[in-house]
Amino acid sequence: MELVLATHNSHKVQEVQAILGASVPGLTVLGYDGPEPVEDGVTFLENALIKARAAFAHTGKPAMADDSGIAVEVLGGAPGIFSARWAGGRDSVANRRLLLAQLADVPEHHRAASFVCTIALVTAEAELSFTGIWPGSVATEEHGEHGFGYDPIFIPEGLEVTAAELEPQVKNALSHRALALEQLANYLGA
Amino acid sequence: MELVLATHNSHKVQEVQAILGASVPGLTVLGYDGPEPVEDGVTFLENALIKARAAFAHTGKPAMADDSGIAVEVLGGAPGIFSARWAGGRDSVANRRLLLAQLADVPEHHRAASFVCTIALVTAEAELSFTGIWPGSVATEEHGEHGFGYDPIFIPEGLEVTAAELEPQVKNALSHRALALEQLANYLGA
Repeated sequence: MELVLATHNSHKVQEVQAILGASVPGLTVLGYDGPEPVEDGVTFLENALIKARAAFAHTGKPAMADDSGIAVEVLGGAPGIFSARWAGGRDSVANRRLLLAQLADVPEHHRAASFVCTIALVTAEAELSFTGIWPGSVATEEHGEHGFGYDPIFIPEGLEVTAAELEPQVKNALSHRALALEQLANYLGA
Repeated sequence: MELVLATHNSHKVQEVQAILGASVPGLTVLGYDGPEPVEDGVTFLENALIKARAAFAHTGKPAMADDSGIAVEVLGGAPGIFSARWAGGRDSVANRRLLLAQLADVPEHHRAASFVCTIALVTAEAELSFTGIWPGSVATEEHGEHGFGYDPIFIPEGLEVTAAELEPQVKNALSHRALALEQLANYLGA
């Protein structure tokens, strides 16, 4: 079975293939290089659906998209859907630097945050969604070389290292994306 | 009566003198150039109290401080207490540019925001607080030359211009700060 993943981010294609492929035999996750719709939704679900619908319309194949981000409690859930362009452009380094600067005076016990991932699946028959949440907190400085996005400044609950200090296979077992993909895999494999 | 305003921002001293002076005869609003405490509160009230307490402790005179900012609905109330340093430094132009960039894809009907101002008053006898809220929305580009901070991108509810397009005396009659100061003036004049 082929499943189009509506993203231009090759990190994500690899990550999703690794997680879904292990649970759904014969599944091939394809990248997508068609037109990108304007993501003008105001929730993870709305934006995931916008992207999955566009990829399904363009390819005619079952398509999934995720929308994910970091939700910081003291920021009322922001960056949220704006995570990827928090500093104004698609620049992870600038995004992390900005978030650290914004929280510079915020003490440790107020730095709670979650990684959130919502996956939308659009096929000829149905539209579905699956959400995973990975609770933790925002570090005060960057640590670790793995992962991408906010991984170097996110300390998962129960750990004393950032998500970027985890080996990829460990992160792939714990992450918000893994939790959402597990639900998708259960659905696809059922 | 002398009242110390715990801010280094001369715009605010002028604005507060103009509003309070009109209601409380003989009131002189003094600036404050003493030590600035770390604002590590996570609400407007906590930060206003931190600043007013520091100014009272340093001067021995009744001291007030405000903490104010813009709360954007789709950002869960952020920038909020982080408004003044939203882009990482105390640079209003950068702050506005960043907020406009973050909301670039957000359509008009999801751009609701409020200006919020909480004033704390600390005297030898009491600690009090007063909050004013000015509802409106975030513009898609800058307009107007008056005011400061987010004024050029904030369209007050019921108007079709930004707060920076209002004459200072009009803004001083409508603003979040005016609403909070009106409550303070009622208290001081009573």
